[in-house]
Amino acid sequence: MQVGFIGSGVMGSPMAGQLIAGGHEVHLYRVKARHDDLLDRGGKRCDSAAQVAERSEIVILMLPDTDDVESVLFGEEGIADHPAPSKLVIDMSSISPVATKQFAERPAAKGVGYVDAPVSGGEVGAKAGTLSIMAGGSEADFARALPLFEKMGKNITRVGGVGDGQTAKVANQIIVGLTIEAIAEALTFAKAAGAEPAKVREALMGGFASSRILEVHGDRMVKRTFDPGFRIRLHRKDLSSAIDAARQLDLSLPNTAATQQLMNGAVAIGPGDRDHSALIQMIEHLSAIKHDA
Amino acid sequence: MQVGFIGSGVMGSPMAGQLIAGGHEVHLYRVKARHDDLLDRGGKRCDSAAQVAERSEIVILMLPDTDDVESVLFGEEGIADHPAPSKLVIDMSSISPVATKQFAERPAAKGVGYVDAPVSGGEVGAKAGTLSIMAGGSEADFARALPLFEKMGKNITRVGGVGDGQTAKVANQIIVGLTIEAIAEALTFAKAAGAEPAKVREALMGGFASSRILEVHGDRMVKRTFDPGFRIRLHRKDLSSAIDAARQLDLSLPNTAATQQLMNGAVAIGPGDRDHSALIQMIEHLSAIKHDA
Repeated sequence: MQVGFIGSGVMGSPMAGQLIAGGHEVHLYRVKARHDDLLDRGGKRCDSAAQVAERSEIVILMLPDTDDVESVLFGEEGIADHPAPSKLVIDMSSISPVATKQFAERPAAKGVGYVDAPVSGGEVGAKAGTLSIMAGGSEADFARALPLFEKMGKNITRVGGVGDGQTAKVANQIIVGLTIEAIAEALTFAKAAGAEPAKVREALMGGFASSRILEVHGDRMVKRTFDPGFRIRLHRKDLSSAIDAARQLDLSLPNTAATQQLMNGAVAIGPGDRDHSALIQMIEHLSAIKHDA
Repeated sequence: MQVGFIGSGVMGSPMAGQLIAGGHEVHLYRVKARHDDLLDRGGKRCDSAAQVAERSEIVILMLPDTDDVESVLFGEEGIADHPAPSKLVIDMSSISPVATKQFAERPAAKGVGYVDAPVSGGEVGAKAGTLSIMAGGSEADFARALPLFEKMGKNITRVGGVGDGQTAKVANQIIVGLTIEAIAEALTFAKAAGAEPAKVREALMGGFASSRILEVHGDRMVKRTFDPGFRIRLHRKDLSSAIDAARQLDLSLPNTAATQQLMNGAVAIGPGDRDHSALIQMIEHLSAIKHDA
């Protein structure tokens, strides 16, 4: 199939690579220089988003934020107003669910389908083709997108209609961020009270406090290994999206807001480009607790 | 062995029952009327804490709060100043780790060992003898307590010295409370944004957001089944202990404090005696979201 892929960065490049390896003719736009190897492997470079749309039946977007998606869809040389053959837009970026519902309207009016399908699993999952994909869209559009999703991911869920994939991703980032913060408070408490955080973490695994975050990020906090992983700066962006959407929905999310503020502080004091488990350094900073590592 | 057990309520009663079933002679004080069957099954009633201490080699406490433990240890007819044969006090109540370290000093000066060993797993775990036990104390005292712990629990960890068991329990309650709050915010966001919370929860299981809390309490939130379980009112008590201890330690725990405040609100608006998963009703209340159930 002729597939368009706009946005080949850290995540998009291995995802587009999976599609090329899967036998698709992939038309690329916005390929970062260090991912030029996609062209050697058979990817076709285009000069504009519009050109991608001209040459592709389905166009996938994997872009940094809501504004980027809006400009590729509706800007000059954008794909939304472009004539066929593109019949389906799949936005795999992580952006606002509220904006996504608006974005889908104009293509829909012209008979072009729209599926939002943000992912989790990071660069590792993208390279292995094992991303979790949370999709929103009509059943028919989802069915058309599914064979492409299956090249890129493993846990693929249609959450509901357009926007619901982004909603699930925001919910995911809220839970992950606030659980990391919770474990950071708990382990800092343990240390301040004179216990060994490693022992406390062990005692808590297997009970109701157990989670993937306690397993993975709790271990990083104990061992003080904060190489990303997923950077605090990026998680902060996701919680800011949650807070923006909450404002649009007249919704009060107190701990999401507080945690986003703590991430602002974390960027200010240093570990913004460390793994999000380094949020514990901000909790320590609040009480002037010093560490060697 | 002659074992004392002070505090036979919802948790203490089945725990003492396990010791009786395990062949120990159990001397009881503070048996609630509805748990009188312990006496029919071989438990011996005493008239004071001091009498329990006179008759027992090891005395176990399972009491509601820090003040109760203090009064049984050091009040009139208390056990701490009482002559042998009691050589070990095991406090299985969930109380302040800071107070625990002070409480252990006076018995220690008289050669009486002290182990703090709060539990998690609730009434179900107590009845099944499968509690998680988080213990603090010397290796020798822990070794003496272990055969009794093995009658009552399954995951038994010596976290460290005296007080470290209570510290682990507080850390546990912080993580559990804040994770419940996080999932409540995430599922409320999902609903407000127009997605189905049940579908969002499903999409998130298996990824980094997955936890025992998302599995169990997330399901209760989706199905609106809030029978306790563990009551918000009791979890609020535990977070208040965390906040008290944090003040004594000059430690700042912003989301623990905020979540304790939300639990105050939950008690005010209604669901204080529902399962702690009903904290979602407070998150909904903040934005005037109404539910049928």
